Amino acid sequence: MVVTSRDVARLAGVSQPTVSRALRDDARVSEDTKKRVREAAQLLGYVPSEAGRALSSGRTRRIGLLVTDLDNQFYSHIIAPVHRELERLGYQLMLHTETADNETVAERLAANGLDGVLLATATVDSIAPLRLRDRGMPFVYFNRIGSLVGADAAVVDPAAGYQDAVDRIAELGHTRVGAVLGPANTSTAQMREAALRAALTARGLVLAESCVRRAPYGAIEGEAAAAELLAGDEPPTVLFCGNDVVAYGALNAARRAGLSVPGDVSIIGFDDLPEASWPIVDLTTIGYDITGMARAAADLIVRRIEHPDAERSEITFASSFVPRSTVAAPRPR
Amino acid sequence: MVVTSRDVARLAGVSQPTVSRALRDDARVSEDTKKRVREAAQLLGYVPSEAGRALSSGRTRRIGLLVTDLDNQFYSHIIAPVHRELERLGYQLMLHTETADNETVAERLAANGLDGVLLATATVDSIAPLRLRDRGMPFVYFNRIGSLVGADAAVVDPAAGYQDAVDRIAELGHTRVGAVLGPANTSTAQMREAALRAALTARGLVLAESCVRRAPYGAIEGEAAAAELLAGDEPPTVLFCGNDVVAYGALNAARRAGLSVPGDVSIIGFDDLPEASWPIVDLTTIGYDITGMARAAADLIVRRIEHPDAERSEITFASSFVPRSTVAAPRPR
Repeated sequence: MVVTSRDVARLAGVSQPTVSRALRDDARVSEDTKKRVREAAQLLGYVPSEAGRALSSGRTRRIGLLVTDLDNQFYSHIIAPVHRELERLGYQLMLHTETADNETVAERLAANGLDGVLLATATVDSIAPLRLRDRGMPFVYFNRIGSLVGADAAVVDPAAGYQDAVDRIAELGHTRVGAVLGPANTSTAQMREAALRAALTARGLVLAESCVRRAPYGAIEGEAAAAELLAGDEPPTVLFCGNDVVAYGALNAARRAGLSVPGDVSIIGFDDLPEASWPIVDLTTIGYDITGMARAAADLIVRRIEHPDAERSEITFASSFVPRSTVAAPRPR
Repeated sequence: MVVTSRDVARLAGVSQPTVSRALRDDARVSEDTKKRVREAAQLLGYVPSEAGRALSSGRTRRIGLLVTDLDNQFYSHIIAPVHRELERLGYQLMLHTETADNETVAERLAANGLDGVLLATATVDSIAPLRLRDRGMPFVYFNRIGSLVGADAAVVDPAAGYQDAVDRIAELGHTRVGAVLGPANTSTAQMREAALRAALTARGLVLAESCVRRAPYGAIEGEAAAAELLAGDEPPTVLFCGNDVVAYGALNAARRAGLSVPGDVSIIGFDDLPEASWPIVDLTTIGYDITGMARAAADLIVRRIEHPDAERSEITFASSFVPRSTVAAPRPR
């Protein structure tokens, strides 16, 4: 005999949809009802068939998080809040990693039977968003905006954070400003560079081309780029880094070069990850509500799936300067 | 017209199974064939139906990684290698987080239509393994052994690493040894404690109960436990930490207490995570092939799924002492 959810519903004295909701621990079902349904399911030896459910509803209640660089620490910090928020809404997170963004990524995402996708590492030249749109697969930009305007997005506005950071270093007397910017084809690097340059201009400061490097958002890459800048003839006295992970790399580069931070060089990150506030790191950085942004992205993709015709929504989180111990006045020359 | 994989196979001039393999980027299919199949699928507008595939084969080719603490940095370092190895074998990783290990975890794992599960945070009193066994769901212990003996496992033997670490601190003249051990109900904490005590005994050293604390494997928790030990009347001159993340916490505790490492206290971790080798951390620790262990766990679960009657296999990785800058001789009293 094949036990169905109808049998469980009858025994537990609830409706059939309640059985499914109770068994996937949906927050809308009371603990009492969940317990009754679970006991009935256990008694009858019922195992819900996800495949059957997907065929009948056309939905899998699974959402993919597409990441092309899982080694990047940034993503390990957003996986947990995204996962929790999706779980609360009755959806499951499915990590989908790729080594490249090409024509076939969208095919593989579609083949996974996902209801929707969060794009966490899209670049302005990404192909995946175009193909996802062609296939009618809902998606949301998370942190970075990709090639296709007009999609839902949860992003950060770096302007306020950079303005306060630049005000601070200007007051301290820094004039030789350097930067390790993120990859040129990411919206985050573009927006942060624009915000940094605008804030510098407002204070009469400039970012000389000789004091700029670009690096992927990784600690190793950040270290190499910072090492180059710090080894120059006229090294910058303050280094803005594309994100905190790059700034950890810059701290490592300074340590390896025998330079003291902030005595010889000030270092500023972006993201305010948990490690940035550790006493052994104590990184001055630019922060925002990272958990809130992760939750917003989860909410946006669920809304897009459940209400395909909803207005497009771009949720922007404000940034702010987080002063810690890696910034001080430059050494007198 | 519904386009099927048969149509794609005919157009591409390959067999039907080759179409599925090519579209999920299986390493066993040549790049040439993949390209031909993709072009045929694109031309015909074919989208493989995962739900249909699951119903016909009874397999979803999805493997869950059950983690109860996604904030723990350790797991962010194993997700990438597990994911890559599973992808190579034609499987997908699905993160499944839970806040507690209870009777219903196994139900939810089963409801997700997983082919198998990697248990990364099992405790010796976990219920999930028993329920997974009841349901006939294949699973593998990763890093930690759980309540059920007799399951496949990929684990570390800490003995060699602790022996060399203890030899080193004994040579340096340490006698007041402290430890922040992991949770008592984890096999990792049990094995590491046993290995540490055995190595100390062999050198005529002891771990006084007043110098021992237990803490979950987190930086915040490690910091609190280490702060207690360092604030004692006769603080230990060397601190063995349950893992690297706990050791980062101990470094933070020392910094906050104004103690120098290794001048005032030596600190030793376990795992040799990437950050441990950063110049700003430079943690003396005990390491093993963490990527190899992640790959082994992925291989074990796929083998268990594809060959349910295979011999049980427990793959043990050797550990070794990794000397860096957080260990030195104790200050003369």
